[in-house]
Amino acid sequence: MSKKSNKSIEEKSADMVVTPWEVSGIIDYKKLVKKFGTTLLDKKEIETIQKYSKGELHLLLRRGLFFSHRDFDWILKMLEKGEKFVLYTGRGPSGHTHLGHLVPWIFTKWLQDVFDVELYFQMTDDEKFLFNQNLSFSDTRNFAFENAKDVLAVGFDPKKTHFIFDSHLTPAMYRIAAEVAKRVTFSTAKAVFGFSNDSNIGMIFYPSIQAMPCFLPSVLKGKNVPILIPAAIDQDPYWRITRDVAPKLGYYKPAAIHCKFFPGLAEGGKMSASQPDTCIFTTDTPKQAKKKIMSAYTGGRATLEEQKELGGEPDKCIVYWYEFYLFESDDEKLKQMRTDCLAGKLLCGFCKKNLAEKVHHFIGEHQERRNKISKEMIEKMIIKE
Amino acid sequence: MSKKSNKSIEEKSADMVVTPWEVSGIIDYKKLVKKFGTTLLDKKEIETIQKYSKGELHLLLRRGLFFSHRDFDWILKMLEKGEKFVLYTGRGPSGHTHLGHLVPWIFTKWLQDVFDVELYFQMTDDEKFLFNQNLSFSDTRNFAFENAKDVLAVGFDPKKTHFIFDSHLTPAMYRIAAEVAKRVTFSTAKAVFGFSNDSNIGMIFYPSIQAMPCFLPSVLKGKNVPILIPAAIDQDPYWRITRDVAPKLGYYKPAAIHCKFFPGLAEGGKMSASQPDTCIFTTDTPKQAKKKIMSAYTGGRATLEEQKELGGEPDKCIVYWYEFYLFESDDEKLKQMRTDCLAGKLLCGFCKKNLAEKVHHFIGEHQERRNKISKEMIEKMIIKE
Repeated sequence: MSKKSNKSIEEKSADMVVTPWEVSGIIDYKKLVKKFGTTLLDKKEIETIQKYSKGELHLLLRRGLFFSHRDFDWILKMLEKGEKFVLYTGRGPSGHTHLGHLVPWIFTKWLQDVFDVELYFQMTDDEKFLFNQNLSFSDTRNFAFENAKDVLAVGFDPKKTHFIFDSHLTPAMYRIAAEVAKRVTFSTAKAVFGFSNDSNIGMIFYPSIQAMPCFLPSVLKGKNVPILIPAAIDQDPYWRITRDVAPKLGYYKPAAIHCKFFPGLAEGGKMSASQPDTCIFTTDTPKQAKKKIMSAYTGGRATLEEQKELGGEPDKCIVYWYEFYLFESDDEKLKQMRTDCLAGKLLCGFCKKNLAEKVHHFIGEHQERRNKISKEMIEKMIIKE
Repeated sequence: MSKKSNKSIEEKSADMVVTPWEVSGIIDYKKLVKKFGTTLLDKKEIETIQKYSKGELHLLLRRGLFFSHRDFDWILKMLEKGEKFVLYTGRGPSGHTHLGHLVPWIFTKWLQDVFDVELYFQMTDDEKFLFNQNLSFSDTRNFAFENAKDVLAVGFDPKKTHFIFDSHLTPAMYRIAAEVAKRVTFSTAKAVFGFSNDSNIGMIFYPSIQAMPCFLPSVLKGKNVPILIPAAIDQDPYWRITRDVAPKLGYYKPAAIHCKFFPGLAEGGKMSASQPDTCIFTTDTPKQAKKKIMSAYTGGRATLEEQKELGGEPDKCIVYWYEFYLFESDDEKLKQMRTDCLAGKLLCGFCKKNLAEKVHHFIGEHQERRNKISKEMIEKMIIKE
């Protein structure tokens, strides 16, 4: 760790992280944290993590994509008392996996390795079925298996990783969901999720199913287990309801560690499957992925002359942010890239080609691992009772 | 069959059935049928049943406790084409079983015997948990097992009877419920069941769980199966929603055969566990049951003299209605009882004692069968996948 990376994430964010899809990036995330009532990750938690990680910090933590939390300090305190947490995260299987999905999973895998803990991974194939008129249960189930291949290709320990397929809801899971549901009124669900009279009654019940994995490990193990949820901050409302209900049911409140959105390849907005051209899917060929990167939005100027004169704008540049969050782990090299860009010494074509090679390599390796994952392997990891 | 009992149920109702808990008994049930949009059972269906039952008609059908239906004529047509139906009924296990619960099960058992068909029996232990703040899941599950003993004591064929315990919701059941839920909006559920903003989100989802058994046999058998639901008419709204949804999911609409309420021992009202003194529980000792009958509301006059002079009022008399619906199958004897009562020749004490003996015997025999039913026998009949 360089001296610089010993700074708290909040400080780092203050001088470096401006997301390219929001002009007032930093300020908005701070506002979001305030609005949601979560807490920015700070030095103290980072230092505790380092005790377990032998000093190493994952890039996504060090560079502040994971930036906010609820009770993560409590999770670490329980750990120091010898009470291990389990991880819980998930995926809404409405299509193929893209890089924006992989990012929190990559970090979750790092947490699994560092803390040697179990992961409960929920495939919300019922949610995607209920909320989307165009998707059948068999569509969402198929995508759940496809997405699960990506989850495993990220490298989770198969012995410590359990899938919850909502379409394979077990009796224990249903009973937990009903216990939650009994304590959530339509008013509350409406206020948090914006349901209306037109919402179907499956959508309205669904928050109970999303809360359920927070309590399932405690039920399966017969004792209360602390839960840590790594997820994008927009998922926070689900856990707010869960946290309200937890003490009423005699469970610990789930803790969370939140990330910002991972950007798509166009100007503005998070990576979203609804804009496939700005999205790198794990099912793209490495060549397709490379091609998409070559069309990415950058911080380049209108003309070569202008760029040489004024320098590029890395804070607006998708290519730069991909290097920042995921592909350039060397702080010095990243700093050099930024300095050279600002000085007009770097041209966008060069950076894009450079990143495209890295993405080509990344997707190729991911697919090599992905191709080895069979449906049978996933089936064995699905909780069935 | 006497000539009289060849009359249609509707006609019989018109001259004989006045329920003691409603002054305008007949008219109200007719209004209910009109309001609900169901159909009164008529001669044609009764005659078809007789083809299968070798001319015998169960007392509850002959005397008109079962009086209304939806598509029962279609069920019989399908049967004549060689397509067998299955029976579906259930119980909300919020307490011990009483005589009012047994009545439709007794008739359902008769249907099972006559038509040699399977029964799916749903224990809605989630419903009772979700709708009642004072009941835990373990309470309702325990009552579900207790009630299941009564179901089996009625004499259903164990090889043709399957229990659905909602607390043991299987993946297939959840998927069917979600398919239903996707097609029912909050508006609809609110209009039919009177939900409000204060309703919990489990209650709101619950109609999907109650619809599910209508489609489960089709899913389990891999082909569409006609369903016949024998149930009290107040349960009809559930199946109305189910019937709306069925064609959208590619299933047959469930058919139903409805009964009136079975009266409690006091003046007015159906037998209800909330008034235990007016209720004969299957867990009462035969002696307790006898004692309760001795306190039943009758159609007797204020004084012995008055009764001898004016005659009794059998249409107001609980004892008479118990004989009518359940305990006196001989039409001539019943007629004599009525005539003698009206003529002031019968005294209430005599009739009560007579009925008390019958109930003592009935409960004793039921309990003898009930005591032979173990939890293990029930467990084996619960659908588990």
